Amino acid sequence: MKAHVWVMPKRTVLDPQGQTIQHALASLGYAAVSDVRQGKFFVLNLDGWSRDEAQAQVEKISKEVLTNLVIEEFRFEIVD
Amino acid sequence: MKAHVWVMPKRTVLDPQGQTIQHALASLGYAAVSDVRQGKFFVLNLDGWSRDEAQAQVEKISKEVLTNLVIEEFRFEIVD
Repeated sequence: MKAHVWVMPKRTVLDPQGQTIQHALASLGYAAVSDVRQGKFFVLNLDGWSRDEAQAQVEKISKEVLTNLVIEEFRFEIVD
Repeated sequence: MKAHVWVMPKRTVLDPQGQTIQHALASLGYAAVSDVRQGKFFVLNLDGWSRDEAQAQVEKISKEVLTNLVIEEFRFEIVD
């Protein structure tokens, strides 16, 4: 079983990396790209957990380890 | 319209960030997490492109700007 976890800067938080990329794209002629947000994506390999355990444990892992809840938010999905 | 772009280290490339997280999780008692891969996730806001244009332009952007094709691979989807 695997988990996919997305960690993104909160909407209210500045995203300097995303802004830098948006500016770079504008200067390359991609004016249609009006905003860029950059986040992190994790693929976790899970051994020996049931789907329910995986759901609960990956939520804990996302909160405690992968996300800085002051400035970031997360979502995840469990996939087979 | 938006684009979602995932950029991951190639399977053949070491992922030191992912390994560090996997070790941290093991030391916290999450032994069931046998592997972690860390990548980047981008959300692009697109104005004024048709779906076909978006498909072509985002592929170019992913290749030329977002991904280091020597060590990374990407996939993307266009969403409304």
